[in-house]
Amino acid sequence: MAVLGLGLIGGSLLLRLANLQVSAIGYDADPATRAAVAERLGAGAMAAELASAIEGADLVVLAVPLPAVPVVLSALADVGYRGLLTDVTSVKDPVRALVSTELAGARWVGGHPMAGTESSGYGAADADLLDGCAWALCLDDETALDDWLAVARWVLEVGGRVTPLTSEEHDTAVARISHLPHVVAAALTIGAADEPVGAAALGLAAGSFRDATRVAATRVALTAAMCGGNALAVTAELDALIHRLTEARQRLTAPDPMSALADWLEDARAIRAHWPPPGAKAGLGLDRDTLLALGRAGGYLTAIHETSAEAVRPPT
Amino acid sequence: MAVLGLGLIGGSLLLRLANLQVSAIGYDADPATRAAVAERLGAGAMAAELASAIEGADLVVLAVPLPAVPVVLSALADVGYRGLLTDVTSVKDPVRALVSTELAGARWVGGHPMAGTESSGYGAADADLLDGCAWALCLDDETALDDWLAVARWVLEVGGRVTPLTSEEHDTAVARISHLPHVVAAALTIGAADEPVGAAALGLAAGSFRDATRVAATRVALTAAMCGGNALAVTAELDALIHRLTEARQRLTAPDPMSALADWLEDARAIRAHWPPPGAKAGLGLDRDTLLALGRAGGYLTAIHETSAEAVRPPT
Repeated sequence: MAVLGLGLIGGSLLLRLANLQVSAIGYDADPATRAAVAERLGAGAMAAELASAIEGADLVVLAVPLPAVPVVLSALADVGYRGLLTDVTSVKDPVRALVSTELAGARWVGGHPMAGTESSGYGAADADLLDGCAWALCLDDETALDDWLAVARWVLEVGGRVTPLTSEEHDTAVARISHLPHVVAAALTIGAADEPVGAAALGLAAGSFRDATRVAATRVALTAAMCGGNALAVTAELDALIHRLTEARQRLTAPDPMSALADWLEDARAIRAHWPPPGAKAGLGLDRDTLLALGRAGGYLTAIHETSAEAVRPPT
Repeated sequence: MAVLGLGLIGGSLLLRLANLQVSAIGYDADPATRAAVAERLGAGAMAAELASAIEGADLVVLAVPLPAVPVVLSALADVGYRGLLTDVTSVKDPVRALVSTELAGARWVGGHPMAGTESSGYGAADADLLDGCAWALCLDDETALDDWLAVARWVLEVGGRVTPLTSEEHDTAVARISHLPHVVAAALTIGAADEPVGAAALGLAAGSFRDATRVAATRVALTAAMCGGNALAVTAELDALIHRLTEARQRLTAPDPMSALADWLEDARAIRAHWPPPGAKAGLGLDRDTLLALGRAGGYLTAIHETSAEAVRPPT
């Protein structure tokens, strides 16, 4: 197994695999990162070149930012890689398109562990980062079910909860619950500093500002790649948000704004106070439709057996 | 000293005062809360009626939600209260207006400790909640400086950092860094659940959604009172946010959205990565203009002496 790119996610993954004593080799384009990983995990855990990391692997994990994906795909094409391929990029349809042009016929199963933070780089990596995280795994029309199940078993081994979705469904969902919050965090942050009140506002700002804007501190290249790489879906979600804020504005300007806001706020409270929803355990068949129905219902796999799976599904 | 209203803030305050062995008596309209406090702090810490709590106090702290403020002011008027009066409500101009009509001539110094959470009620009270919190204290044209300094010394004793602002400046600042984030959290939460993608989105949602929407779980009456009670300022901030999100939309729909987003995201990152700003210690005179200039610059008082004060001020 090879992990290509050893930033926050790839680095955490390699540390996790080392803890699990799963044989894996890492590679990063940055010599300082390679040196840091080799010092921690031993020289045998680190390839000096991309091609040597790939050589002999039967599962390659792309853990590079979206703009670097084509370079790695081209390296995989050069060595004629035929094994399983997954990735941890925060958008899936663009990766799917790149794979289909750069590495046609690849056994790619797109993945996205929902484990990002405002920190990035190997310095922030942590063997426990991926433990228990929601991990979207794309089951597209062209995905071979056996390949999907093989990668899903590996994700479970690493400690993730497997959510089956199509690439398009994934991109719409994360536009809404991850990319949009990043855009909003940036807008709230820029707005907070706006003078003449900016300095006083930033001086008074406390918990609600801290949490609402935490991800605005993320490395710009990462946020730009994930929002820009999913621009159509993020734009649609942004339009829906602006529409919703405009409705809130109408309530704020009503004759009795407190009453006008109350039922709208109650809708939000009822959802947020019950998130994450409590799940019920369920047994499951391993066919494509059953798996996708689970992911669409907000559920996830916890174990995969020979012909069945165990899952957790929110109440409907 | 009397603390009227023993929810999250008032309850935490009474627990804190008990820890500091400062003599204080509490009152809450809810009998169950009164019983819980009396059990914890002793019957002597609790008044059975509002009037008996006020009797003999030389500092009254209003810690009731905004809609209950008139009732308490009217009780203070009934007993002819002449001592210092402060409050912990999240809006100040509406309280100022109520005081001027219900309790003309009162020695009111409006306060707002920035220590709210998504929890509420005495059950969530914590003696350490107010420790080190930013505590806005209103220095309006009609505020007697000696009264302001007396309340400021008390806030420092309780553990707060005193930020001098006018009521209007306070309301604009908190509209931006507290009330607006509450409205946005509600809008993001309602939007996240929107079908057909809602269940999958809520199932995948992780850190950025969790933090962006945390305060949407707040008790509706509190959020409605603070946003509705500050509706003009919140509406202005909401308009500015919608404008900013519309700019972000233009960048998202540019030919190269990643590049178009990058410098905008960098503006946000530069602000958020340096928040809270590092402060430098400064000595300070105790005149009105000097104090307000400190608060407007995002600074706060840490100690008040006979004729001078110590402060922390962000670099300009």
